[in-house]
Amino acid sequence: MGSLYTDVTENNPASPLNPLDPEEFRRQGHMVIDFLADYYSEVDKYPVRSQVEPGYLSKCIPESAPNQPESIETILKDIQSHIVPGITHWQSPNYFAYFPSSGSTAGFLGEMLSTGFNIVGFNWMSSPAATELESIVMDWLGNMLKLPQSFLFSGGGGGVLQGTTCEAILCTLTAARDKMLDQIGGDQIGKLVVYGSDQTHCALQKAAQIAGINPANFRAVQTFKSESFGLSPVELLKQVEADIAVGLVPLFLCATVGTTSSTAVDLLPGLCKVAAKNGMWVHVDAAYAGSACICPEFRHFIDGVEDADSFSFNAHKWFFTTLDCCCLWVKNPNSLVRALSTNPEYLRNKATELKQVVDYKDWQIALSRRFRSLKLWMVLRSYGVANLRNFLRSHVRMAKVFEGLISLDTRFEVVVPRYFATVCFRLVYSSDEIDGDDEVNNEINKRLLEKINASGKIYMTHAVIGGIYVIRFAVGATLTEEFHVRDAWKVVQHHANLLLSQIQD
Amino acid sequence: MGSLYTDVTENNPASPLNPLDPEEFRRQGHMVIDFLADYYSEVDKYPVRSQVEPGYLSKCIPESAPNQPESIETILKDIQSHIVPGITHWQSPNYFAYFPSSGSTAGFLGEMLSTGFNIVGFNWMSSPAATELESIVMDWLGNMLKLPQSFLFSGGGGGVLQGTTCEAILCTLTAARDKMLDQIGGDQIGKLVVYGSDQTHCALQKAAQIAGINPANFRAVQTFKSESFGLSPVELLKQVEADIAVGLVPLFLCATVGTTSSTAVDLLPGLCKVAAKNGMWVHVDAAYAGSACICPEFRHFIDGVEDADSFSFNAHKWFFTTLDCCCLWVKNPNSLVRALSTNPEYLRNKATELKQVVDYKDWQIALSRRFRSLKLWMVLRSYGVANLRNFLRSHVRMAKVFEGLISLDTRFEVVVPRYFATVCFRLVYSSDEIDGDDEVNNEINKRLLEKINASGKIYMTHAVIGGIYVIRFAVGATLTEEFHVRDAWKVVQHHANLLLSQIQD
Repeated sequence: MGSLYTDVTENNPASPLNPLDPEEFRRQGHMVIDFLADYYSEVDKYPVRSQVEPGYLSKCIPESAPNQPESIETILKDIQSHIVPGITHWQSPNYFAYFPSSGSTAGFLGEMLSTGFNIVGFNWMSSPAATELESIVMDWLGNMLKLPQSFLFSGGGGGVLQGTTCEAILCTLTAARDKMLDQIGGDQIGKLVVYGSDQTHCALQKAAQIAGINPANFRAVQTFKSESFGLSPVELLKQVEADIAVGLVPLFLCATVGTTSSTAVDLLPGLCKVAAKNGMWVHVDAAYAGSACICPEFRHFIDGVEDADSFSFNAHKWFFTTLDCCCLWVKNPNSLVRALSTNPEYLRNKATELKQVVDYKDWQIALSRRFRSLKLWMVLRSYGVANLRNFLRSHVRMAKVFEGLISLDTRFEVVVPRYFATVCFRLVYSSDEIDGDDEVNNEINKRLLEKINASGKIYMTHAVIGGIYVIRFAVGATLTEEFHVRDAWKVVQHHANLLLSQIQD
Repeated sequence: MGSLYTDVTENNPASPLNPLDPEEFRRQGHMVIDFLADYYSEVDKYPVRSQVEPGYLSKCIPESAPNQPESIETILKDIQSHIVPGITHWQSPNYFAYFPSSGSTAGFLGEMLSTGFNIVGFNWMSSPAATELESIVMDWLGNMLKLPQSFLFSGGGGGVLQGTTCEAILCTLTAARDKMLDQIGGDQIGKLVVYGSDQTHCALQKAAQIAGINPANFRAVQTFKSESFGLSPVELLKQVEADIAVGLVPLFLCATVGTTSSTAVDLLPGLCKVAAKNGMWVHVDAAYAGSACICPEFRHFIDGVEDADSFSFNAHKWFFTTLDCCCLWVKNPNSLVRALSTNPEYLRNKATELKQVVDYKDWQIALSRRFRSLKLWMVLRSYGVANLRNFLRSHVRMAKVFEGLISLDTRFEVVVPRYFATVCFRLVYSSDEIDGDDEVNNEINKRLLEKINASGKIYMTHAVIGGIYVIRFAVGATLTEEFHVRDAWKVVQHHANLLLSQIQD
């Protein structure tokens, strides 16, 4: 293997070691496994939010690629010195920001195997196992979620793994758009209207934009504190009727179960009724909260999904499957295929022509696709359904613990109901003004959060809901245990004490 | 660790082993490294194209997910028995189909580390190292390709890693569309026209479809054998003028360097002139051939790129970086950001507000993104520029060897010029009809290819170019050495002998 590290020149193409030499792969692979195992052992010691300044890395890295090879030992040293400090440690047990990105050994190994095989599974033919395992696992998971049969392959629908919810929404929106344009004429795209709430993830607006929906025809229907910021069928209907009255065509509703800001839940049954009456496609985005719905006690949050057209959740958020892995089910796969299929000669093959197989390239934006089902399959098998439920429950239980700790400190309040494992809370400094001007409280909570995050001990992020700045505490990092949550609360209290004493000075 | 394998019940949430327990991660990780190293040692022994029948996997796998955990030993056994036979072995040294999906140890390790850190790098803030390394590596690679400064961050442009060329085209097309609609009015989308050639990858048509371009306004301009199936500026101009004459608005040209069917090269300088005169965005898709352009002797194939608006190639094809990794450069990042940015409150942060950083979420379809630059960085460092050039040259050399072998057997012909490491050839049975009816030859080559692929010894795919059915022999699998190519030719000859003797009987 020495030859890889001898001088290589353009005119001396002496054969260096093959880049896939199995024994060198083995040697370096074991080194990186140990590197990562050590990383997990020590991840709780790093500042959770990276503390580097913009531009830090260009100071540590040469301006151009090396001409000569460098050893794995050198590279790993650089990763430890230069990359690790620039990472925000999403796998840290003290990570409570955004939503979790919950890794697991099984998810990691599935990704390794997929990367190792490195197949490009655009259609069945290109690697039958990739397509077939995906279809099987999507039915497994659909059953775990008690999705109606109509969403499963066994019931005429079907599931597909996308990279992200953004892609899932763009694909279903494109399918809905083309179905509608088939009915009303291809030149009517300017009349189509897309609906979400003011709490819907920005992915919807972006998807509408990419799909050529007139930006003026995007509706973020208002939600209210009195309804816990869930989209109400009454408000949707008002907007739909107003649009129809001016000659527009309602197209697509994205309803959310577990919004990004506050994990609010839109009221699916009523929303689906409004949509059905007006010929709209309903997509249910349960990116974060979908996982929890494998537990019987949480399943009710997606009641009504049977009347939607599509449903998605991100296994890479809170389901122990590494990024990226968004699970999408549709009732009518043909509408996806109608909008997204291409059939170039160079991909023609017998299995496709005999219509014996699913060709997932026609269910997504890209042609190429990784063997993502492998990691999901390994997560389901390695842990089993009972454990998976219990893991999720343990996160919810820890969020409840945190909520309990908040309630014991009268300086704080929980701002919206906690449904899952995310708590939205704030320090109430200016209590006389709770119902009036929130500016003072907002500013104080912003300062408090920045102090906490700058400490590096824990990491949380914020949202503004109904004008109120809230601190979000999202439990779900795989390594988090109850003592991390209790310690996190102490960090919050400590910085609140400091801040309040400074203000009062 | 035994607790993971004790009975788990819903009412007995005894704490099983944490799914990211570092020592269990280490144990299982080493097992999978050995599994994959063994796989690479033996991959030449598997039938290259999977020989399973549609539906094979559902016969080996239970109908629902297990309630109880299963051990990694059991799962790996199932992968060997049920998954490996359903895989088409893209990493086999006998794989010559489609285009390569060239893995490497460095690319694999980069993916492992990215998966291990499992960060969600939507913006700078979420993990500064991910954004900064990507910008640095894209400038490194841009310099290796001698892209004009205007495509690099150091020159006001910039590069981004997308998943696939499909995404790169969709993003640039959306940017071009919105820039044009800003000028001519948002309600004019129905007038926009998108251009490629009849050899352009189907990704362009799909992107146009998703972006809401009227399907009637998609132009696949005809190419000719006399011009080796490259798109000619003259033909483009004719079409553009015809469209303008009926009131349509030329929007976007996708020019290809190294088409999928035959690795044809569109004539960039002339095409860019036509486009510039008519206010069109030019994207250069060098998905396959771009890699080779790091070698000075191949760089001329992208001469003219300085007048294009964007350029992309797939590092996951022929650059030793595992799927997925598409490198995209644009001259005007603002046009991407204008079309694709979203700024929800929950992602607001100081670095973004001070405009000190790149937020790659605004350069792509999805919000979430993996730490892809890590693998590209590791490939560049582990092999070095000189070795990388020599690896690519060795593939080209092997393709030339194959071409030489064809030329020694007068029954065969090379159908189009070989520019890179892909040879398009065919058996010429009915030689009187070469210039006339190719149906007989087409049918015979189709049968020949199927026989060869069914043998499992090598795998090649086909294309139809100018009415001629060709067999494509694409060298580029990392493990391929010259003797594999010579053996492959013997397999071709053997099956040609058999077929011809059957026909003549």
